[in-house]
Amino acid sequence: MRVYADNAATTAVSQTALAAMLPCFQEIYGNPSSLHSPGQRAAEKLAEAREIFARRLNAEPREITFTSGGSEADNQALRSAAALGARKGKKHIVSTKFEHHAILHTLDALAKEGFEVTLLDIPPDGVVTAEQVKAAIRPDTCLVTVMFANNEIGTIQPIIEIGEVCREAGVIFHTDAVQAAGHLPIDVQAMHIDMLSLSAHKFHGPKGVGVLYARRGIPLVNVIYGGAQERGKRAGTENIPGICGGAAAFDEACANMEKNAAFLTPLRDKLIAGLTAIPHSILNGDAKRRLPGNVNVCFEGIEGESLLLLLDAKGIAASSGSACTSGSLDPSHVLLALGRPHEVAHGSLRLSLSEYNTAEEIDYILSVLPDIVSYLRDISPVWDELEQGRRPHLL
Amino acid sequence: MRVYADNAATTAVSQTALAAMLPCFQEIYGNPSSLHSPGQRAAEKLAEAREIFARRLNAEPREITFTSGGSEADNQALRSAAALGARKGKKHIVSTKFEHHAILHTLDALAKEGFEVTLLDIPPDGVVTAEQVKAAIRPDTCLVTVMFANNEIGTIQPIIEIGEVCREAGVIFHTDAVQAAGHLPIDVQAMHIDMLSLSAHKFHGPKGVGVLYARRGIPLVNVIYGGAQERGKRAGTENIPGICGGAAAFDEACANMEKNAAFLTPLRDKLIAGLTAIPHSILNGDAKRRLPGNVNVCFEGIEGESLLLLLDAKGIAASSGSACTSGSLDPSHVLLALGRPHEVAHGSLRLSLSEYNTAEEIDYILSVLPDIVSYLRDISPVWDELEQGRRPHLL
Repeated sequence: MRVYADNAATTAVSQTALAAMLPCFQEIYGNPSSLHSPGQRAAEKLAEAREIFARRLNAEPREITFTSGGSEADNQALRSAAALGARKGKKHIVSTKFEHHAILHTLDALAKEGFEVTLLDIPPDGVVTAEQVKAAIRPDTCLVTVMFANNEIGTIQPIIEIGEVCREAGVIFHTDAVQAAGHLPIDVQAMHIDMLSLSAHKFHGPKGVGVLYARRGIPLVNVIYGGAQERGKRAGTENIPGICGGAAAFDEACANMEKNAAFLTPLRDKLIAGLTAIPHSILNGDAKRRLPGNVNVCFEGIEGESLLLLLDAKGIAASSGSACTSGSLDPSHVLLALGRPHEVAHGSLRLSLSEYNTAEEIDYILSVLPDIVSYLRDISPVWDELEQGRRPHLL
Repeated sequence: MRVYADNAATTAVSQTALAAMLPCFQEIYGNPSSLHSPGQRAAEKLAEAREIFARRLNAEPREITFTSGGSEADNQALRSAAALGARKGKKHIVSTKFEHHAILHTLDALAKEGFEVTLLDIPPDGVVTAEQVKAAIRPDTCLVTVMFANNEIGTIQPIIEIGEVCREAGVIFHTDAVQAAGHLPIDVQAMHIDMLSLSAHKFHGPKGVGVLYARRGIPLVNVIYGGAQERGKRAGTENIPGICGGAAAFDEACANMEKNAAFLTPLRDKLIAGLTAIPHSILNGDAKRRLPGNVNVCFEGIEGESLLLLLDAKGIAASSGSACTSGSLDPSHVLLALGRPHEVAHGSLRLSLSEYNTAEEIDYILSVLPDIVSYLRDISPVWDELEQGRRPHLL
């Protein structure tokens, strides 16, 4: 059996999204900036896609900017808010320790440019609080950026409450919604979200397509300079097939959101129950306040990478954490922020489901995983030390 | 008859490119950063695509960085060379007045950051000389960036000679080859090119895919921060379908380059002869040193935009210049740099052909265009003044 359980890394493109893309390769292939009919047909497609994202986010079309992905959207959001802040003499930014690297590394760059960054600690349940945000905001704070749902442990942050705190303080609130978009309800008005990033390939849309929502009145700075596309704020010929596929996928994901969540939540909970029944294991992040498809467990005494390879040999595609850093030997910064010791953080497994998974696949994972963990522990010198009491169990 | 003669703006995706993309949407859809088999199959696709671009440019795979398009590649090239120069106290850049806005606007941004930019004048034939470049290079010059072929008038620049001048002076040479790649032979070794940008959708590849070639030893700076993709120099999940489609299109375009040029050159020359036979018209740029598919002519006494709309009504998709600025009322900066007066530059027409065009289409264009020009002149008050001698003819 082949099981793809790494949907937080990327997803298969849906039939609906592919159908929306296909006409744009060889029929409606014009450049939307062109005045002629083939160009204007492409421009209409672009406008339709913008309208879909705006409607589903409760935003206005002109507040939607298309980018090459979530990372670019994050970069542009942070740089825009920072530039606006700098003009007002406000150079303090609040974020969290478990943001995606597209946020953390951009904040590093901004710190080198003179901004001061406060990264909030992560409580043991993986959910930061609005009170933490409120306490960190200063008179010179220009931006709060807190992710909607964490990409590794799937915990959902109290976005409405954080939005309210920011609104009261008059601080721009950005949320990296790359993992949440298409999976959780988002209403930028009700949630007081000023800027939001999302990426199409996380909800069965194509790779290479992102959206930056920026509330009207927040001027964007260019990350990419050049032509006058996207109201002059994002140069480069628009990726019309990708944008249309992304919009169709978002529309589909939002329309099926409740149904998908109702299908996935029991599968997720069954996986969590089965995996945490393995001795010396622990669920990472709150059991309920998490994405409907996210499971993230640490197993003591084993290496996540070996676990992945053995799962792969059984046809199961999983992850130890973020795909973006999977070449790295360092343990996940998310799990460390959550308070897991290094040796525990190394033994992490993330299974991320989508509506394309089946109940049979979950049973299959549960049928092979305990044996793999046992096998790895049997050959692990660390496990030997733990069992012989020469090293204390941490889980 | 429907004629798409705006291939410099964008092209239809080739059958070969589409065939390369299709398996990557729903079969080989993994994230190439993932350790599991679906991810590794995507990583293999990525490596194959990188290898194709490297081989066709005579570069090494590790010198190829994938971006979201030509604009991003231009931005990253210039910022990287500038950062390297700044570290050595060299903050002078040489470019030309008729570069694409992805170059000119990035140079504007660098100028605000303390770089000094020399923009070379454009000779009447639209071909800058290596002597001009040599004369502009100073001890503090860190970068020369000259486009391979101009996007509006199609003139081909003396890249080998400029490369030699830069090599002798020890200055990094970047070329924006967005219009040239896939249409003209490129050999980064023989041509002494240190950095090069290209865009897949200009040679029947997909939109949203660019390549930045950077010679080994030239460190890239991030335009987009985040994950460790592209050796840490370009964050964001790689657009595998697009990259595979772009590589297939580039391979195909390079394999058919001579054949395509042999087919297009006489069509181009027939168009040029036919259009310049219309009184008070002029070809923009050298008649021979130009892209095999590029025709760019100014007609006195008419507005290019009106011409485009009437051509469109006849089924012919053309342009007055760059699509990226077609919303603008300003005349083309390229034609102004070429020395055309404002009133002449406003009456420009660019027809850009690809191997998908036919001889019949060229005949059709030539059968309708003179009448359209006559009609527009008949209703033009300016033409009236010209004909009555109240205003001197400029052409």
